[in-house]
Amino acid sequence: MDVHRDIEGLTAEEAVKAHRQDLEIQDKYGVNYKKYWLDEDEGAVFCLFEAPNKEAGEKVHREAHGFTADEIYEVKEGE
Amino acid sequence: MDVHRDIEGLTAEEAVKAHRQDLEIQDKYGVNYKKYWLDEDEGAVFCLFEAPNKEAGEKVHREAHGFTADEIYEVKEGE
Repeated sequence: MDVHRDIEGLTAEEAVKAHRQDLEIQDKYGVNYKKYWLDEDEGAVFCLFEAPNKEAGEKVHREAHGFTADEIYEVKEGE
Repeated sequence: MDVHRDIEGLTAEEAVKAHRQDLEIQDKYGVNYKKYWLDEDEGAVFCLFEAPNKEAGEKVHREAHGFTADEIYEVKEGE
């Protein structure tokens, strides 16, 4: 799970576009961006992805649109 | 989506227990704790919930087990 904070002027449309850009190139890094949630007012986005490691997820964001996350956590889904 | 940070000694078992405690009382506040993800090494937990407002989600956590979140975001799931 990654966390993007304080993105100025974040809109749902821009997030949709960025997410699609991730999906287009993610296979190259063995990454699967599965879901994301956004808070437009706060400019926050949470991206849930599967990847060999945190860096692979970051590489996808950087290459796809340049919006890298502020934090990345290696999470397991709770029961 | 709420974010809990730097929980010392966080274990998956404790998170399971806390989540069940949320589920037991959440109806009282009209809340639905749907999923959560945890990073044991970082002591971080992300809880995805539906609620009338942020405060309702906080009340459930406080009453169920006392572990309130550090941040709460009103998120929409991305397309």
